[in-house]
Amino acid sequence: MELTNHQIRLAARPDGLPKAGDWEHASEPVPDPREGELVAQILLLSLDPAMRGWMNEGRSYIPPVGIGEVMRAGAIARVLSSRNPEFAEGDHVFGIFGAQEYVVSDGSGAQKVDPAQAPLATYLGALGMTGMTAYFGLLEVGGIEEGETVVVSGAAGAVGSVVGQIAKLKGCRVVGIAGGEEKCRWIVEELGFDAAIDYKADDVGRALREHAPDGVDVYFDNVGGEILDAVLTRLARGARVVICGAISQYNERAPRGLSNYLSLLVSRARMEGFVVFDFQSRYPEAAAEIGGWIAEGRVKTREDVVGGGLEAFPDTLLKLFRGENVGKLVLEVAAA
Amino acid sequence: MELTNHQIRLAARPDGLPKAGDWEHASEPVPDPREGELVAQILLLSLDPAMRGWMNEGRSYIPPVGIGEVMRAGAIARVLSSRNPEFAEGDHVFGIFGAQEYVVSDGSGAQKVDPAQAPLATYLGALGMTGMTAYFGLLEVGGIEEGETVVVSGAAGAVGSVVGQIAKLKGCRVVGIAGGEEKCRWIVEELGFDAAIDYKADDVGRALREHAPDGVDVYFDNVGGEILDAVLTRLARGARVVICGAISQYNERAPRGLSNYLSLLVSRARMEGFVVFDFQSRYPEAAAEIGGWIAEGRVKTREDVVGGGLEAFPDTLLKLFRGENVGKLVLEVAAA
Repeated sequence: MELTNHQIRLAARPDGLPKAGDWEHASEPVPDPREGELVAQILLLSLDPAMRGWMNEGRSYIPPVGIGEVMRAGAIARVLSSRNPEFAEGDHVFGIFGAQEYVVSDGSGAQKVDPAQAPLATYLGALGMTGMTAYFGLLEVGGIEEGETVVVSGAAGAVGSVVGQIAKLKGCRVVGIAGGEEKCRWIVEELGFDAAIDYKADDVGRALREHAPDGVDVYFDNVGGEILDAVLTRLARGARVVICGAISQYNERAPRGLSNYLSLLVSRARMEGFVVFDFQSRYPEAAAEIGGWIAEGRVKTREDVVGGGLEAFPDTLLKLFRGENVGKLVLEVAAA
Repeated sequence: MELTNHQIRLAARPDGLPKAGDWEHASEPVPDPREGELVAQILLLSLDPAMRGWMNEGRSYIPPVGIGEVMRAGAIARVLSSRNPEFAEGDHVFGIFGAQEYVVSDGSGAQKVDPAQAPLATYLGALGMTGMTAYFGLLEVGGIEEGETVVVSGAAGAVGSVVGQIAKLKGCRVVGIAGGEEKCRWIVEELGFDAAIDYKADDVGRALREHAPDGVDVYFDNVGGEILDAVLTRLARGARVVICGAISQYNERAPRGLSNYLSLLVSRARMEGFVVFDFQSRYPEAAAEIGGWIAEGRVKTREDVVGGGLEAFPDTLLKLFRGENVGKLVLEVAAA
C-alpha cells in the first residue's frame, strides 16, 4: 500500500500572528523504513505557544524552523513498521515528529508511551513536556516552599494548570490569573486553587493586594506584558519570578517593555528564565512523580483535543493566542 | 560657644531632576549632648545615586525622606563632645548623619574610622558603603567565577570602579561601560580593566560582540535603560545580571521599559536585585578584605572631593546624574 504523507511546512516567517500564507501544505510518499528506522503514523500533535518563537529567525534556545521545513511539533504516533529493535509495530511513541501525518525516524529522542496507563493526549500534557515544564520550573527554578504564596499566569492553560496543582500539593497558597469567568471557575472549583484573578475583568494589581496581601513569593509567568509588570509591584521580599514564556508578546512586532523591573531591587528578588530541555535527564523521575499524583487524584489533567486532521493545524494553533483553550491543546491527526 | 547647625531639608518631592525649590536651607542651634549622646561636626558627605530614590514617595527598601526632614546622607564626622562611652572627643565616625553641619546621635549605627589607616573620604568610598555594595553584589549576588567575563556599567563611578577591580583580582575578564574617553582610559590604564566601552561614542551591543565574544557571564548594572537592554542581548548561558541601580532612570517621569528580558529565558539566565544593608553583619569582613587589597595596591581608590560646604549639596548631587564624577563623589562640609 502506497501511503501519502501530508505535511505542514513553514513557507514564510510570520509578521505578527501566523496567517495562511505563512504555511505550505505539501505531500510526499511515505518510504519504507531502512535498517534502524521506524515508520509511524501520527495520531496527535501538541500545540504550544513556544511554536511561535520557533518560527522566528534569530538566536534562541533552539534553531528556528527553516523555511520549507516541516513545522516542528511534539507528537504521539503509532509504529506501522520498524527495523529498529527498540520499537515494534503497534507501539505508541512520543517524539518531536513534526506537523505531518507520518514520520520516518531512527528512534533517537522517541519514547514509548503506554495507552493502558493514561489517555494518549495526556502524554503530550501533564505526563509530557507540559508537565515537565511545570514541574522543573516550579520546583527547581522557583524553589517553592510550604506556606509560600504562588501566583501563576496562564493558569487555565496546559502548563499553568499543572503548576498551580503542584504548588497546592506542596502546601502553598495558590492564586491563578486567567482570562474569563469559565477558566477562573475551573481552576478554583475543579483544581483547588485558592483564588483566581480574571485579567479581562479585574485590575490585576488590586486583585493581588486582596488575594496575596503579604506579597507574592513565587510568580510563574507564562504571559509576560502588563500582567508581569503588575505582579512585579506585588513581590514579597526574596521573591522568585520564573520566566517560562510570554504568550502575550510572541505576536507583537515591538514587545512591550517591562516597566517595573526595579521592584527586583526593592524586594531583593530574582527573575530567572529556563528551558525545560535542560532537565531532560530527569524527565523519568518527574513523569513518575506526576503519574503518581494523577493516580491519587491530586493532579487533574485536561486536554482540549481538536479534530479536523492535519489541515486544521494552522487554525488550531491560533486558538492558543486567542486564549480559547482550557488545558492542553492537542490536534487529532488520526483516530487512535 | 553657641554653634549653629545649617541643614539641607527636603522641601518637595522632585519631578525629574531635583531643582533648587525642592530643598529648604534651615538652621538651628546645636544642643549639648544628653546622657548616651554625642555631638559631632560633619566633615564629609557621601553623594549617592540612591539618594534620588529616597526623595520619592512610595514603597521601597527604606522609607522615603519625609518632607521637612533633613536629607538622608552618609557622612564622616568628628566628635566634638560625647556622653556616650563608645565615643570620645576627637574620634572620627561614619554614620547616616544627614545633609547638615552637625549631628546629635545616640551612636547607634555609627562606626569609628581611623584617619591614620586611610584618607577619610575612602571610608565613604571603597572602605564604606560603596565598597560593600561592590563586594557583596559581585561576589554574593553575581557569584563570579575565575575565567568568567564580567561587564559593569557606571564603570568609572564609585561602585563600578571597585566592582571591576575585584572581578579582575578574582581572575575574570572585565569590560567596563562608561561615558567619555577620559573615564574609559582611566578604567583600562589605571584600574586594569581588559576593555572599556564608551556608551556615548560606541554602539554598546556591537562593542560587546567584540569585547565579550563568548557572551557576558555576569553583568553588574548601575545604570538601567538602554544599556541594560543592550547587555541582555549578549548574555552567555547561565548568566547572572545583578541589579544594583539604574541611574539613567531615576529622574525619568516614565521609566523606559526593558524590552529584552526574554533573553533571560533563551540564556537560562537570572536577574537579581539586592540592597547592601542586608549584608550589614558582614561589613567588617568585607572591609578587612578590601583594606588588604588596597594595601597591596590591587584595588585603587579614587574620590572626587568637591568643596563649597553644605550649601553646595544640591548642585553637587546633580553631578552624579550628569555623569561628571570619576570615582566616589564626596562633598567637603568642613576641613578635617
